[in-house]
Amino acid sequence: MIHEKYFELQDKQEQLLTRKNEVNEDFYNGIYDRYQYPVITRHHVPIHWRFDLNKDTNPYFQERLGINATLNPGALYHDGNYYLVVRTEGLDRKSIFTLAVSDNGVDNFRFIDAPLVWEDIDQKETNMYDMRLVKHEDGYIYGIYCSESKDPDVPATDTSSAIAQAGLVKTKDLKTWTRLPNIKTPSPQQRNVVLHPEFVDGQYAFYTRPQDGFISTGSGGGIAFALCDDIENPVITKEEVIHEREYHTVYEVKNGQGPAPIKTAKGWIHIAHGVRNTAAGLRYVLYVLVTSLDDPTEVIAAPGGHFIAPYDDERIGDVSNVIFCNGAVVNEKDQVFIYYASSDTRVHVATTTINQLLDYAFYTPEDQYRSLDNAKVRQELIEKNEQLLSLN
Amino acid sequence: MIHEKYFELQDKQEQLLTRKNEVNEDFYNGIYDRYQYPVITRHHVPIHWRFDLNKDTNPYFQERLGINATLNPGALYHDGNYYLVVRTEGLDRKSIFTLAVSDNGVDNFRFIDAPLVWEDIDQKETNMYDMRLVKHEDGYIYGIYCSESKDPDVPATDTSSAIAQAGLVKTKDLKTWTRLPNIKTPSPQQRNVVLHPEFVDGQYAFYTRPQDGFISTGSGGGIAFALCDDIENPVITKEEVIHEREYHTVYEVKNGQGPAPIKTAKGWIHIAHGVRNTAAGLRYVLYVLVTSLDDPTEVIAAPGGHFIAPYDDERIGDVSNVIFCNGAVVNEKDQVFIYYASSDTRVHVATTTINQLLDYAFYTPEDQYRSLDNAKVRQELIEKNEQLLSLN
Repeated sequence: MIHEKYFELQDKQEQLLTRKNEVNEDFYNGIYDRYQYPVITRHHVPIHWRFDLNKDTNPYFQERLGINATLNPGALYHDGNYYLVVRTEGLDRKSIFTLAVSDNGVDNFRFIDAPLVWEDIDQKETNMYDMRLVKHEDGYIYGIYCSESKDPDVPATDTSSAIAQAGLVKTKDLKTWTRLPNIKTPSPQQRNVVLHPEFVDGQYAFYTRPQDGFISTGSGGGIAFALCDDIENPVITKEEVIHEREYHTVYEVKNGQGPAPIKTAKGWIHIAHGVRNTAAGLRYVLYVLVTSLDDPTEVIAAPGGHFIAPYDDERIGDVSNVIFCNGAVVNEKDQVFIYYASSDTRVHVATTTINQLLDYAFYTPEDQYRSLDNAKVRQELIEKNEQLLSLN
Repeated sequence: MIHEKYFELQDKQEQLLTRKNEVNEDFYNGIYDRYQYPVITRHHVPIHWRFDLNKDTNPYFQERLGINATLNPGALYHDGNYYLVVRTEGLDRKSIFTLAVSDNGVDNFRFIDAPLVWEDIDQKETNMYDMRLVKHEDGYIYGIYCSESKDPDVPATDTSSAIAQAGLVKTKDLKTWTRLPNIKTPSPQQRNVVLHPEFVDGQYAFYTRPQDGFISTGSGGGIAFALCDDIENPVITKEEVIHEREYHTVYEVKNGQGPAPIKTAKGWIHIAHGVRNTAAGLRYVLYVLVTSLDDPTEVIAAPGGHFIAPYDDERIGDVSNVIFCNGAVVNEKDQVFIYYASSDTRVHVATTTINQLLDYAFYTPEDQYRSLDNAKVRQELIEKNEQLLSLN
């Protein structure tokens, strides 16, 4: 017999799931829109994924498998729907992947099917997270995720050091997933590995992060580009850094590729994350790059500063002061949906268009890397504006 | 002459002290209830504990001895009342112990008497905090607290490293306290030492944390069990670890016993804290264990994941992202009152019952320690529920 509390919680959840999500009119930058509510929170996870509904075995209707956070989704626009593969963290800290879908991309996201599982080819793998979903021109949908295991080379008293590798899965229908071997690279560790959606010189192309270190070392070594001919047995032998960390920028301490780049007539638009250190820990923001259609290793636009940073309630969460994005999609109207997580806790959307993003990328002044030079750039803007204002 | 401002502040505070504290209906997990308001904040501390009331000597009615935070109380259900010995931190960062009492355990807490003092037997002791209160079957009420002093073995330029010891006091009436010697253990440092309420093999029994290091090293070595025959001159010679830290859990970096365990027909229920590292600093949550009535070193239930984690406004404070508990009581109706502090700033209560806690402890799935295995456990829950739902 189903516990009566289930129906009460279902009704309450249905109100959340059907709530309209309007543009947040308090925020304006002309580059993208923010929305009133997150698109996915832990409260969106189905009741029957968390509670044993059976009154006989769960007389107090206790949450048996709670969800701590929903964050960092891979995203795919597929058959007219907006799919997210959500990093879904249990109360036990282990992240699993779950599938959510919406018909409009900004609200009505619902979890479907069941948590994703596939052949367990690596018994050492402990945690899985931050999948990048890519529909490749070879016809498959690929997911690359961070596959973590305990570092075997640290003393037994160190119970936290991890080794991160790039796990790889493929699917055609988002239901049945095939696990492929981890992507081997020259670097001992890898996070933020992303598949480029097209062949380059007839090979599969990847964004990697060479010489990656553990979280606390902050030694991520820039965004790199790499080729590999066989994706069934992926071995990368050369990583070429295309965007390095830089002193006193928003990507000073670490940076990494976000989702797969978005193809436009003027270049590939990249949404990346940058990290700096503060007295209250690391601060993660997003920034934008454009690479050349002819040469994906050539950066042809680099608007200065952050693109999305924590805003209002986004500032607070399990890991405060973090914005992270590994999912963005474009629909047939060239509308762009950027799915980003705030403070490792919940998922938001920012919407824009290809033309707005290109305008942002090519006409935002580049960083001058020095306060006094940046002040001069701002002075020029002010003077031009004051001239215009005086003519009116 | 008493400053007229005093009466104004008194009236305002009286509204706070008499405010009803209802269950927070937005939160539901079937395991415990949260409440709308904290039960103790710095604003609860009596005006005359902070201000010189005399208009002649305090014409501006300035706060002469402000309170920065009220946190981490030891708790005792005694003569039908709910007593808390509150870590009360002045603006100067020194914590003192104060006594507060309520007749219902969820609101109307009032500070009584005066800050607790006792014989000063250790001139090196600088700071005192986090007392565990235990009514032992020997007839005394004991308090074990963290007694900190500056580490004498670090360079003079290091002005923050501390040595932590287990301070010990006893009382019969919560008014007059006798200071006993610090508890000596094989470990050079001790935090989170707790007295077991009953004799074990005719001896006093303690929970300790062997090989404790300073806060930033994060090398707390698990929850241990230890025996000692003389509590007037307590020397522990052997610590046996009963619950260790574990890679990629909520107690990965540090863990420690919370209040004294709660005796039930099915075992001793322990509320412990677990710590993991994040890009924004350490995250403290609570978790639960049950040990055997026959052998208090044997863990017989370990529900997976956290029991209480920072929620909503609890996330923010002097030390954000922290839930800590060193006080929980049971009344004669088997209602359990768990007093926990959020973000080292204020005290909350969560209420439940012995039966609910046992149901939680024994029927919450254990952690599988791997994402893919945890996903499978959740899949099984979903499948059972879907079967039940399809029958209806």
